[in-house]
Amino acid sequence: MSNVRYYHAGCPVCVSAEQTLLGLLDPKVQVEVVHLGEQSSRIAEAEKAGVESVPALVVDGQVLHLNFGAAIADLK
Amino acid sequence: MSNVRYYHAGCPVCVSAEQTLLGLLDPKVQVEVVHLGEQSSRIAEAEKAGVESVPALVVDGQVLHLNFGAAIADLK
Repeated sequence: MSNVRYYHAGCPVCVSAEQTLLGLLDPKVQVEVVHLGEQSSRIAEAEKAGVESVPALVVDGQVLHLNFGAAIADLK
Repeated sequence: MSNVRYYHAGCPVCVSAEQTLLGLLDPKVQVEVVHLGEQSSRIAEAEKAGVESVPALVVDGQVLHLNFGAAIADLK
């Protein structure tokens, strides 16, 4: 099954996108939700994966930036 | 069930996002895929829904812009 991570920062755009998208996913898909505001130690991991802004969904190494909530640089 | 439309224009970013995302969705979710390059008559509908660029997923009136392939204005 795919490796799926949802990176967000608790912003309104992030919460809205999460509610919109995650409910549509196949129940078999396990999504790890990572709050970069609370887990700043994982910002480097997100950047390495290619995440430039949140919210973003990373699927098997492919990054989907969903709308624009905040730039990664602003979370540091 | 949710009303889901995927608007795209056949661009590389659009195709990549479609492959990444649509395969993760619940099989019960029916997605209408709309190619605005081929169905330019539906550009107005997309704009009315709030789509500013493609690819975009519209879920029950909520727009998720996925990365950036092309601006709607450039499809006209």
